[in-house]
Amino acid sequence: MLPSIYNPEAPFTLGILGGGQLAKMTLQAVYRMGMQVAIIENGESSPAGVMTKKEFGGGWNDAASLEAFIAASDIVTLENEFVDPAILDVIAEKRLVFPTPDTMRLVQDKYTQKVTFSKAGIPTPQFAAIETKQDLFDFGEKYGYPFVAKTRKYGYDGYGNATIKRDTEIDMVWRKFMEGENPRPLMAESFVTFNKELAVMVARNKRGEVAVYPCVQTIQEGHICVTVLAPAPIEEPLLKRAQEIAVACVEEINGVGVFGIEMFLTPQDEIFFNEIAPRPHNSGHYTIEACYTSQFENHLRAVTNMPLGSPELRVGGAAMINLLGERTGSGIPDSVVEMLKVSDVALHLYGKKDSRLGRKMGHLTATADTMDEAFRKANTALERFVW
Amino acid sequence: MLPSIYNPEAPFTLGILGGGQLAKMTLQAVYRMGMQVAIIENGESSPAGVMTKKEFGGGWNDAASLEAFIAASDIVTLENEFVDPAILDVIAEKRLVFPTPDTMRLVQDKYTQKVTFSKAGIPTPQFAAIETKQDLFDFGEKYGYPFVAKTRKYGYDGYGNATIKRDTEIDMVWRKFMEGENPRPLMAESFVTFNKELAVMVARNKRGEVAVYPCVQTIQEGHICVTVLAPAPIEEPLLKRAQEIAVACVEEINGVGVFGIEMFLTPQDEIFFNEIAPRPHNSGHYTIEACYTSQFENHLRAVTNMPLGSPELRVGGAAMINLLGERTGSGIPDSVVEMLKVSDVALHLYGKKDSRLGRKMGHLTATADTMDEAFRKANTALERFVW
Repeated sequence: MLPSIYNPEAPFTLGILGGGQLAKMTLQAVYRMGMQVAIIENGESSPAGVMTKKEFGGGWNDAASLEAFIAASDIVTLENEFVDPAILDVIAEKRLVFPTPDTMRLVQDKYTQKVTFSKAGIPTPQFAAIETKQDLFDFGEKYGYPFVAKTRKYGYDGYGNATIKRDTEIDMVWRKFMEGENPRPLMAESFVTFNKELAVMVARNKRGEVAVYPCVQTIQEGHICVTVLAPAPIEEPLLKRAQEIAVACVEEINGVGVFGIEMFLTPQDEIFFNEIAPRPHNSGHYTIEACYTSQFENHLRAVTNMPLGSPELRVGGAAMINLLGERTGSGIPDSVVEMLKVSDVALHLYGKKDSRLGRKMGHLTATADTMDEAFRKANTALERFVW
Repeated sequence: MLPSIYNPEAPFTLGILGGGQLAKMTLQAVYRMGMQVAIIENGESSPAGVMTKKEFGGGWNDAASLEAFIAASDIVTLENEFVDPAILDVIAEKRLVFPTPDTMRLVQDKYTQKVTFSKAGIPTPQFAAIETKQDLFDFGEKYGYPFVAKTRKYGYDGYGNATIKRDTEIDMVWRKFMEGENPRPLMAESFVTFNKELAVMVARNKRGEVAVYPCVQTIQEGHICVTVLAPAPIEEPLLKRAQEIAVACVEEINGVGVFGIEMFLTPQDEIFFNEIAPRPHNSGHYTIEACYTSQFENHLRAVTNMPLGSPELRVGGAAMINLLGERTGSGIPDSVVEMLKVSDVALHLYGKKDSRLGRKMGHLTATADTMDEAFRKANTALERFVW
């Protein structure tokens, strides 16, 4: 029987698989609502692990660590989509887990994702499973160059993707992913020429209630999200279309929790599904300052079957800029103080010990009456920030 | 030598004396900025204590507990103004403490407060120290009835105040406070007939940099703050005057940290100083959702001598309503779920185990384009909330 969601005698404890910045920000929301969190991760002192006494640093692949984590949690969720569904099945024998193992199976494999969504009528790029090197040549022949080869599982922030511009590159790509100790099964996708990349966060609870966040524009550099603009500077019908696609994706996989759906906007104003993350997402960090209910709070509400909070903006516009590591070394920024002098931009630092090139170390969020003004504020702050 | 404020190898740890909801909300800000917190309190599992591994439940009157807390902290601050300055002196031998013991000595005694401020030209009600029962009669004779007898120390939320409406009440008041095991030294103040009660939060760092929050209106019921309206619905010159008075108070006591200054607005549009709290304050909780920098974040920035963040509103208006215990019993609200259906109001629950009549168990904050709209939203949510 589910414990009361709010009982100070036996405080409700949300268990989170993963202790990174996404879990860190979810903890903020959970604590604010008088509840507690258990974190399981490989190693101690993760960004979220330091924030709770219920820290299980043995990781979820260690049976004792996992068992202790399950015992400490009332409901379990994740911040890391790379959890083996077999582990989720083990947890699900004892606790409610959201998103469910079944949803995770549909999502974790990018090929399965696209099969599921395209069958449901959601617009996707052309795609195919790649079993042999010849399949890559055939795909290029059929759909044209350039196209993208992607590992079906475990890719993120561009790791696991390779854009193939001509057939002479196929040998090298095949060797990189498929030869050696750990071959990584591939899929291929048409390269979508896009004007903008879009994202929409969607929260959904077990009752099927849905909260759809504003459609935002994301700007990547080297496959890593750098900037998020909310709302996306596109016309109203396109904003709505993106939201509709995002909701359709989450309903198609019977998703419970919070999901980040990424999309492409083409020069012909077509919107294509790109990827889905079954967890809070970088494109939704702005919601902390800018919306009535952050994606993290709605993550909690969704998995505990509480009524969802309003995803609407409480300000005119917002802009978020990631703070990415500029070199390998310790995670000490040189000029936090300088940046803090820009006094109306919110600074988030994740507390990671080590930096490396491109690693997400924190972010800035600005809000204003318009998105353009927010973007200007955020850039001003960024100029003063040096690792 | 002061440690770097941001070093993931040796994370900066703010030590807070007190583990209640004020410390809880300060922890939110500290974690967001990649730092950590140590909490010392009487007993474990306080609202803030559950949020950190560095919890010292032996309290600051226990030498071993205090020593361990000091060792774990880089800089120390407080959320509870009733800490004996002698304890602060002990801490100050080893760590920077803000507000300083000297500031606390000026603030902890309400009579000393008023002497300090009135000498500096800050408008206060008439007041006097009360050594004997006859002094009470003399005060009433000189300044009129009703007047207020207040314990010089340790009063809060109306505890320690008695309004004396006629001389026949003096015997009973004297007996209540001055006879028995623990006599509590008194002062007397003229009763100020007010239209509104106002409050302003002020943050000030060691460099003397100041951030002044909007002037708000506070509405009390039975001496306990119930509602806060931001900004106060009064004319611009009065809003500014209240802010000027608040800043003057903090500068007069060389205050470093965040301070809540409460004032009266009379029917003649005069503003009088009422009380000062040397810590984050109930009247500033709205700043979490409504301002660029919350009072809690500026508390951290002030005591670590970082540049202060903007205290300006990021929305048009806000309203906060306290959730007060309605009876003695366990701290379990009956209808969190009902209230949560009002989806654009932020719910804060402090996680206190026990409720009692009038105890602060949480609060709601609404924001909107105008304060009036925010107040309507907050009231709608409150109607659905039942302990």
